[in-house]
Amino acid sequence: MFVPLARYTASARQERAFACSKAQHSRRVSMSTGKTVLYSAPNSRGAMVEWYIRSIKAPVEVVNLDMGKGEHKSPEFLRVNPFGKVPALEETGPEPWSLNESGAILYYLAEKYDRNFPKDAHQRAQILQWILFANATLAQTAFMESLREKQLPGLLAALDQHFSKHTFAVGETFTVADVALGSYLGYIPMFFPGKVDMTPYSHLNAYMERVKERQAAASA
Amino acid sequence: MFVPLARYTASARQERAFACSKAQHSRRVSMSTGKTVLYSAPNSRGAMVEWYIRSIKAPVEVVNLDMGKGEHKSPEFLRVNPFGKVPALEETGPEPWSLNESGAILYYLAEKYDRNFPKDAHQRAQILQWILFANATLAQTAFMESLREKQLPGLLAALDQHFSKHTFAVGETFTVADVALGSYLGYIPMFFPGKVDMTPYSHLNAYMERVKERQAAASA
Repeated sequence: MFVPLARYTASARQERAFACSKAQHSRRVSMSTGKTVLYSAPNSRGAMVEWYIRSIKAPVEVVNLDMGKGEHKSPEFLRVNPFGKVPALEETGPEPWSLNESGAILYYLAEKYDRNFPKDAHQRAQILQWILFANATLAQTAFMESLREKQLPGLLAALDQHFSKHTFAVGETFTVADVALGSYLGYIPMFFPGKVDMTPYSHLNAYMERVKERQAAASA
Repeated sequence: MFVPLARYTASARQERAFACSKAQHSRRVSMSTGKTVLYSAPNSRGAMVEWYIRSIKAPVEVVNLDMGKGEHKSPEFLRVNPFGKVPALEETGPEPWSLNESGAILYYLAEKYDRNFPKDAHQRAQILQWILFANATLAQTAFMESLREKQLPGLLAALDQHFSKHTFAVGETFTVADVALGSYLGYIPMFFPGKVDMTPYSHLNAYMERVKERQAAASA
């Protein structure tokens, strides 16, 4: 059962919900300033945010909604995300606050918790470029059949060229941009098996392997 | 004719290109640190960035590419944006640098040039949320026919609800989030005339009018 977490005083129901969540870092969460909760669901775009949270050991609790039961459309959750979608992030406490869109959540968590998040304005802008590229350009090109045939090979070739010169999306260091880009790239063989020929892009395939290793390491 | 601008020493060709561009604020650009150039094209997503540049009087020159002549696929431009798309931003000078994805360009310009850009981390994250929402969620839902019928009315209703309580995307102040969101909302009647019924969303329509007024004021 989905239990609303924010804007409410702590309750036994709430405590149970937290206890059931995958809270690995609750010791770092100060009750006085509230908790940070990620609402997610298996096989949703929440998965990439969960991976990133584990990877940077961010003090964020994960609550999985049962979308089969429509918990993402419940009045309680619509108060967190009026669009009724996961992932959504919520900070409880005296000034509760929430955020949706996986790309915005990733960037916010990076700024707040990732010690390796670059200070350089150009690098940060490039991280944002890749997050937007993954969520908008790549996703639309892959998921719209007309674009998939006409434009996806060109995008993948340009990505292949990029990864012939760079280890990760922004230079040589793994960043939050790789969480978004790597995840969306992984959707292509998952959603379109046999429909998109990925074999010509050896540098891109090597990059996707590097990203998978990172993902596995974060889950270990 | 498209003239490559970056990574090259100044030349007469380059000077001509700058003279031809809509450079309203070149006086604020220091030659010693290089120029900032937006590559755009009429009726492209570059238009929203041009609007924002005018709105905040950012010292950015605009160079329109002739896409009919394939200037966005020229080797010179592919050095600026390997994906061959506009808009793209380039900073020339000793350390030339470029950025693509309209949403990332908007956010970068906001951080760098918009005196009203909020310092508060939550507000900035919400700006990013709306930029991603416009580019990813709203665009995909509007442009994919299957989603347009099933999910667009729900999105528009949730937006209508948001604008029943807020003047702009993030609270009461016009921000760069409204440039992205307002522009993408404007695409709906433009691309799907008669296919999407916008009449039920009175608060959303009022918001779109407020955004149009802003756009007109920036162009005046």
